[in-house]
Amino acid sequence: MARAREQMDFRLPPVLKKLKRGPQVLLPKDLGMIVAYSGMNKESIVVDAGAGSGFATVFFGSIAKKVISFEMRKEFAEFVAKNIKRSGFDNIELREQSVFEGFKETADVINLDLPNPEQIFSSEFSLSDEGVIIAYSPHTEQVTSFVKAANGHGFECFTVEAIVREILSREAGTRPQTKGLTHTGYLTFARRKTLKE
Amino acid sequence: MARAREQMDFRLPPVLKKLKRGPQVLLPKDLGMIVAYSGMNKESIVVDAGAGSGFATVFFGSIAKKVISFEMRKEFAEFVAKNIKRSGFDNIELREQSVFEGFKETADVINLDLPNPEQIFSSEFSLSDEGVIIAYSPHTEQVTSFVKAANGHGFECFTVEAIVREILSREAGTRPQTKGLTHTGYLTFARRKTLKE
Amino acid sequence: MARAREQMDFRLPPVLKKLKRGPQVLLPKDLGMIVAYSGMNKESIVVDAGAGSGFATVFFGSIAKKVISFEMRKEFAEFVAKNIKRSGFDNIELREQSVFEGFKETADVINLDLPNPEQIFSSEFSLSDEGVIIAYSPHTEQVTSFVKAANGHGFECFTVEAIVREILSREAGTRPQTKGLTHTGYLTFARRKTLKE
Amino acid sequence: MARAREQMDFRLPPVLKKLKRGPQVLLPKDLGMIVAYSGMNKESIVVDAGAGSGFATVFFGSIAKKVISFEMRKEFAEFVAKNIKRSGFDNIELREQSVFEGFKETADVINLDLPNPEQIFSSEFSLSDEGVIIAYSPHTEQVTSFVKAANGHGFECFTVEAIVREILSREAGTRPQTKGLTHTGYLTFARRKTLKE
Repeated sequence: MARAREQMDFRLPPVLKKLKRGPQVLLPKDLGMIVAYSGMNKESIVVDAGAGSGFATVFFGSIAKKVISFEMRKEFAEFVAKNIKRSGFDNIELREQSVFEGFKETADVINLDLPNPEQIFSSEFSLSDEGVIIAYSPHTEQVTSFVKAANGHGFECFTVEAIVREILSREAGTRPQTKGLTHTGYLTFARRKTLKE
Repeated sequence: MARAREQMDFRLPPVLKKLKRGPQVLLPKDLGMIVAYSGMNKESIVVDAGAGSGFATVFFGSIAKKVISFEMRKEFAEFVAKNIKRSGFDNIELREQSVFEGFKETADVINLDLPNPEQIFSSEFSLSDEGVIIAYSPHTEQVTSFVKAANGHGFECFTVEAIVREILSREAGTRPQTKGLTHTGYLTFARRKTLKE
Repeated sequence: MARAREQMDFRLPPVLKKLKRGPQVLLPKDLGMIVAYSGMNKESIVVDAGAGSGFATVFFGSIAKKVISFEMRKEFAEFVAKNIKRSGFDNIELREQSVFEGFKETADVINLDLPNPEQIFSSEFSLSDEGVIIAYSPHTEQVTSFVKAANGHGFECFTVEAIVREILSREAGTRPQTKGLTHTGYLTFARRKTLKE
Repeated sequence: MARAREQMDFRLPPVLKKLKRGPQVLLPKDLGMIVAYSGMNKESIVVDAGAGSGFATVFFGSIAKKVISFEMRKEFAEFVAKNIKRSGFDNIELREQSVFEGFKETADVINLDLPNPEQIFSSEFSLSDEGVIIAYSPHTEQVTSFVKAANGHGFECFTVEAIVREILSREAGTRPQTKGLTHTGYLTFARRKTLKE
């Protein structure tokens, strides 16, 4: 796996600059995609799992009405708790357990940054009518497994990958940066098939 | 100019599906970048100009505390007014004038989708300390002009371009879509130099 | 499958403009990658299969010493034969059979644009010491199958994908084209592991 | 300028592995584009300037009938001379002067990896009817200047940029490399307008 520490130097919004940086985080480009394609907004109930370093959790906390954040690994959960505290947000609830143990709240957005996101479909979860489940997957095989499971449970999917380059505008001229991130992960968005327009 | 009508078919979040589609709109990938890199959130005061079809205005309305939307062209302003009504949001204020005539509210995010965004620096505007001005520019020359003006007025900039491909996961196999959008615009984010970390 | 007819309008070198266009062809960007990463040159013996429309075959014929082209489908083989004639090249030999039936010549480059390129490893073939086998695969699963088979037969691999955008430089300004090809195929290059530097 | 030494580690064809590596070289992806879009072949007379480290010169030497290579900087010319010797090719002629001093041979391909490639149009040069002039430009402003000059001298142009990612196919799964080159340069191909199809 390769979302390395250096990636952290990528441009961050103010809300994330206050946080302590863990080993792996979703980057702004992917957080932005998640918000825009899911339609996450200030009325949204968001489930985020696994929280990891808490970057996505806190970012969603700045946008959504409420965030329920799952992180089953004790040391990561403590890390996330500290980052939530640093954010100053009071709309984030951290649960030190697996999201696949289930939850009863009705979510509008369920964000899964986990090795086997398709497990959600055999878990107890509640999703609003227009709700969206998102799987963040570094590998194509994960996309395939998630899409197959989603389709089998009455969900339709689309998957995007964002290649984002910084463009340098300097005295010498204008050009894309010469080196940088070339891949983070694929984002698959699943929603109920009955919603087909 | 090339943000054609077909681009509208790209995946849209629920909030934008209710709207009537005009000739040119910012797409989810770019709206997501704007939110993520600017740190726009539910406390934000956002200025959006020119509103065009109102897609960005309404999207920001779903995220921010308040949106002040500028559209000086009468026929477009009417189009935007209808889309704001369709959205049902009451936190959007539409002004049928140029943003360059100035405004007195202190904005956290100023989004400029206009041919000459650098005019903002010779206009009357108010920006919060960590506030961000965004210029959406289809052409590289526009990026250069904006960055130069921003630098000359005590702002530092970074510019990104997002190449987003849909990934198809089907019986036949997994691959990126074979045809689609290859460019929309460059997004330049400007903030005051004194904020340098 | 999606290498559509419109893709043919993409910029072509003079040697390919003389040819009659079939339903699917390797595009200049991929032909260029094949030449550059394989090191194909005027001393090379090249095997090309399946020939399809004969575009790759003729292009390689303009570069290599000799091309042996395999196309087992009768109607395609006739199409290729005509395109070879149009090219005027006398260094191309067309065989109306499957490359997997085997060949005795020692190839420097074996280019496989076929659904199951990994079959080569269970076929009779001869490759020079620094020789390269290339698999062109639209889908990621094909890449995986080929790499696995190659590794199992003492070959090491690397795979590249080229995203090529045309950049427009006009009165209105400079920008990438707004729509176009977003994917053709992955190119996997396999060579004997003993050649490791 | 940013074509750094590390870029040299990118996959190289056998012909280039023998060479001593200088500070800046055209990479296989760009060399491949040049060959494919120009139609360079074993009958071609190629002019390459400035030779730099001699990588492009030697690569073209492996493909073309004859290469005339210009490098006016003495220390670079000596470097190139050694690399030509290492290649073992006898079809490359090195001239320690600027290409803009002119040449009398009729070239099929003129490759310009120089800061001001548009100077060619005010220089003495000879180009075959279907001949192509290529400008390799890291910056967009260079593209603009070259295209403008070319158009003014009866040439039409198209420009491409290739974003090439390596795809990793491993036990853990299949995905693009996470970090790497994100830009080298733009390739502009100019040919006489009278050749319009």
